[in-house]
Amino acid sequence: MAHQQSELANRINRMLKRLPHFSVQALLILDMSNIRYLSGFTGSDGALFIGQGRRVLLVDGRYITQAKEETSGIEVLEYQEKIEGITNVLSHHPSLTVGFEATTVTVDTYTRLKNRLEKITLKPLPEEIKAIRAVKTAVEIAKIETAADIASRALVSVLARIRVGMTEREIAADLDSAMMQCGAEAVAFPTIVASGKSSAWPHARPGLRKIQAGDVMMIDCGAVFEGYHSDETCTFVIGRADSKQKDVYQVVKEAHDSALKAIRAGISCHEIDRIARSCIEEHGFGEFFSHGTGHGVGLDVHEFPRIAATFKNILEAGMVVTVEPGVYIPDLWGIRIEDLVLVKEGGPAVLSKIPKKFKVLEI
Amino acid sequence: MAHQQSELANRINRMLKRLPHFSVQALLILDMSNIRYLSGFTGSDGALFIGQGRRVLLVDGRYITQAKEETSGIEVLEYQEKIEGITNVLSHHPSLTVGFEATTVTVDTYTRLKNRLEKITLKPLPEEIKAIRAVKTAVEIAKIETAADIASRALVSVLARIRVGMTEREIAADLDSAMMQCGAEAVAFPTIVASGKSSAWPHARPGLRKIQAGDVMMIDCGAVFEGYHSDETCTFVIGRADSKQKDVYQVVKEAHDSALKAIRAGISCHEIDRIARSCIEEHGFGEFFSHGTGHGVGLDVHEFPRIAATFKNILEAGMVVTVEPGVYIPDLWGIRIEDLVLVKEGGPAVLSKIPKKFKVLEI
Repeated sequence: MAHQQSELANRINRMLKRLPHFSVQALLILDMSNIRYLSGFTGSDGALFIGQGRRVLLVDGRYITQAKEETSGIEVLEYQEKIEGITNVLSHHPSLTVGFEATTVTVDTYTRLKNRLEKITLKPLPEEIKAIRAVKTAVEIAKIETAADIASRALVSVLARIRVGMTEREIAADLDSAMMQCGAEAVAFPTIVASGKSSAWPHARPGLRKIQAGDVMMIDCGAVFEGYHSDETCTFVIGRADSKQKDVYQVVKEAHDSALKAIRAGISCHEIDRIARSCIEEHGFGEFFSHGTGHGVGLDVHEFPRIAATFKNILEAGMVVTVEPGVYIPDLWGIRIEDLVLVKEGGPAVLSKIPKKFKVLEI
Repeated sequence: MAHQQSELANRINRMLKRLPHFSVQALLILDMSNIRYLSGFTGSDGALFIGQGRRVLLVDGRYITQAKEETSGIEVLEYQEKIEGITNVLSHHPSLTVGFEATTVTVDTYTRLKNRLEKITLKPLPEEIKAIRAVKTAVEIAKIETAADIASRALVSVLARIRVGMTEREIAADLDSAMMQCGAEAVAFPTIVASGKSSAWPHARPGLRKIQAGDVMMIDCGAVFEGYHSDETCTFVIGRADSKQKDVYQVVKEAHDSALKAIRAGISCHEIDRIARSCIEEHGFGEFFSHGTGHGVGLDVHEFPRIAATFKNILEAGMVVTVEPGVYIPDLWGIRIEDLVLVKEGGPAVLSKIPKKFKVLEI
């Protein structure tokens, strides 16, 4: 706990040192994962003000006891109405320039704050603020790895129970339950179990379709451990595979493996995406790879950086990202292979535990 | 399906008729529940443009197949990057005034759209747009009632399995699994199982604490059925109850029952809140009732209207809201009683199925 509190204090100090870089004198943080990262508060609503010698966490009445127990060295104040609470704190600091997260704060919140705080300049901080959580400490990496281990173990246990005639939804419910039994505090996102044609929807929801021999079945799941998420996708064929399924799987696997192998500190996100994409394009399936190659994972399941063609940022040691190319053939099926990867100086360290070789589930 | 498609078309037509009231010529919808409500598309990302004779759903590559299958009478377009996709559609309509959801759209999104669409006026629609989904049709009410029935049945089945020594998290995992087995497509929100002191945190997360005789145990859960949510809270005492637990339960129950009984078309939200709150205040526990009395429920688990002191809107027949007063005594325990209620002309119709009388769980 002492260790955690000093890590939290370090994070706030790191942010405070960046204020001149952002050309602001204080920060108003409204993204709940950023608030958790900086303060330790795990509730679902609140606001954090840092700067001018103050560290103030604002919460509503539901969270006042919790906020005091979870934080240290931070003033906890209660509000009836959030905008009013923020206004009360900020109005003690006239003529300030306060940075805020432009990708979190809504136009409504911004407008209401601006109207009440005439002397304060609210300055949007669009992209960089998102990067504060990108490089993880050893403690954070250990939590993500535990989450990945929980999800992988749960999925392996569920695979042994899958039978023809079960619905996607039954399998998803079994997997969610298995993740909780394996030690997850929550599931990281709605678990995807997509079979047959719906596997051609990259983000399908589990439905009432019963799985049958010859199906492609895609399972995308993650666990949460002490706030940190995991994310892994396995695609299987049920009972018997045809040659097209095998061929496309090998293409996706080649794209996945090539991109994975290239991951190291110093390479750019769009270069990783290019490696995966060009491999799929060379085999003529480029039009069926309809999303980016990956994304950062941590207190949010999707966070900075994105591994995509438009994203020029450089990977740094300590970032944790997914590598998840896919090929989705409308009206037929889709195949995605996803691992969670720690970026290290010399190369990647895979955190997901399930080997990604082509597998026909015998059922 | 034909029925559903005509209901969807009606909803868009209803929105289009309101454009003059909003003083706009078209709408850009970015809230995913509003998009689902108006178009039928159930994906997790996209944008909907309606007006000027056009109905355009914009999605990324993951969702193009799904969007075409789920919608009807709507043009489906793919984007690589969302702001660029929206800009491409809007730039065909110069000098337009386009309304958008100010409580959904971030400052970043707004700024990037504004910079690219110089001739278009983007007009924030702050509150009223949220009300479009508040009054439910019979089909929607039936779905919410099914969701409520699933959650209630699951909770009853789990109560029979609770034993001293189980952790909060085991009970929550069992309940989530039971909801899925009873027909939920997902859980409505992270299930709360809070025992002992943590029940004094209104929104506690289930932890590793083992329940024991004499505990207050609060369970707050909901199911999702065809997109529609439920929400219900039961508070029990484990094994044996002391007189303070019984007394405070009766106070919360009196507040709950009085507010519930007052619900009907024509009464204001803040009047319902006042009824619950004054009852708790009269018994000297006012400072421990630290949140609003309820909220609307539908495609989102929290939606318009709020039942709170600051909310003057009038309840209408067909709205579905929670009634959930609570008393939370720091370092001791908390008690909340929550039902899901349909507003009717003459009074309330309770959709939750579990009776809320004081109950000691024999274990």
